[in-house]
Amino acid sequence: MARAVIDLLPAEHLVYLGDTARYPYGPRPLGEVRAFAGQIARHLLDHHRAKCLVVACNTASAAALDELRAEVEVPVLGVIEPGTRALVSATRNGRVGVIATVGTIASGAYQRAVADTGADVELTCAACPGFVEFVERGDTSSDQVHVLAERLLAPVRAARVDALLLGCTHYPFLARTISDVMGRDVVLVSSADETAFELRSLLDATGLARDPGTGPGRHHFLSSGDVAWFASLGRRMLGPELGTVEPVTWPR
Amino acid sequence: MARAVIDLLPAEHLVYLGDTARYPYGPRPLGEVRAFAGQIARHLLDHHRAKCLVVACNTASAAALDELRAEVEVPVLGVIEPGTRALVSATRNGRVGVIATVGTIASGAYQRAVADTGADVELTCAACPGFVEFVERGDTSSDQVHVLAERLLAPVRAARVDALLLGCTHYPFLARTISDVMGRDVVLVSSADETAFELRSLLDATGLARDPGTGPGRHHFLSSGDVAWFASLGRRMLGPELGTVEPVTWPR
Repeated sequence: MARAVIDLLPAEHLVYLGDTARYPYGPRPLGEVRAFAGQIARHLLDHHRAKCLVVACNTASAAALDELRAEVEVPVLGVIEPGTRALVSATRNGRVGVIATVGTIASGAYQRAVADTGADVELTCAACPGFVEFVERGDTSSDQVHVLAERLLAPVRAARVDALLLGCTHYPFLARTISDVMGRDVVLVSSADETAFELRSLLDATGLARDPGTGPGRHHFLSSGDVAWFASLGRRMLGPELGTVEPVTWPR
Repeated sequence: MARAVIDLLPAEHLVYLGDTARYPYGPRPLGEVRAFAGQIARHLLDHHRAKCLVVACNTASAAALDELRAEVEVPVLGVIEPGTRALVSATRNGRVGVIATVGTIASGAYQRAVADTGADVELTCAACPGFVEFVERGDTSSDQVHVLAERLLAPVRAARVDALLLGCTHYPFLARTISDVMGRDVVLVSSADETAFELRSLLDATGLARDPGTGPGRHHFLSSGDVAWFASLGRRMLGPELGTVEPVTWPR
């Protein structure tokens, strides 16, 4: 997501907060995810004067978007709806798939979002427990991850979907493995790209966009966990824009 | 566009202003279109307290969006970017087409918008002079309009596009004829649907959405030209939601 935003909006200042101390959110109760999301939002508003928030985690988007919007004074974008719209645009045969964490799939957020588009499509969802852990270990193409992908993707393959949404921020790093399993006729749709487009559109429409003439944006990375680990993972996943990572601590 | 907004956002109040006295905008100089768009925007803000503006005309979007955003105090959405994003999501073979008025195509707005997506696609544009006039006459399926469509769509057919954006608010009414000419493997993408989705997303993100619990939205139609003609055209194109049409006059 940070990569997509930096690429599409090079003039914007970006503050990325990875709540690695409390990660992963997938297995946590919804109420807890909501409380964490609220705390992160306040931190970004109070300490970094954020003009717009992107909830760049599908689990948190599914759990906390409405509450956040009611609580904060700036625009809040999630990742569920932009991805869903791209998904229903991408299908030819009307059969679409979403893969995401157990928590996201169980929340029903994608089922609702697809129904909300009004598109005449048949949706098949598959939870993919384990994918995130492989990506975090840096393993995106081993035999092990391939075997796991074959097992987890079986429902969306059986449904003969021709468009598949990668409904978790970590999954694009497994795109090659997922594509090998699904077959190259299946279009893989990323929430990150679509959300970045939606962010640009929102900033343009509301007059919040930063003037590109004032120079490139600055990028600021925060982690609530081990900053060295976050920096090494981040450099692999994001590239050279990840400079120093600053710690953030939550009150107990 | 009004149809798509009413369907997707039934709780929102809609004020639709058709500048039929000065229509069509397609052949007018850009500066004139900008002045008209600014005047319409002020009318909707001052007399109807609009909380958000949709420039539901591709020609005006191409000509006046940046100026409007600088001038007015509410969010302003155009129709070019939402449609473009859906278009690049919809292609399989990487060859996409846009059909629009002469003014829209000549403005280069779609060429820029497609380049801005960063998608690796080949764009073919075709201006379709005459389509709007057929739709306004209520002729969407005669032999005449079919022959015209075959001639005007020849460039996008020759380019073997597999996704075609209907880049003018009138073109969806010719969808069947266009589809007959293009072949049913070519996906037709409508700016109106995508723009309505983007409007919903913007209203949600910014907290501007009206609470559906407060009842259905009211719909208000204004025309700067012959209100009886506008009402009859509007009922055919929009359906029963078009109630009375009120006149609006511009100072000379």
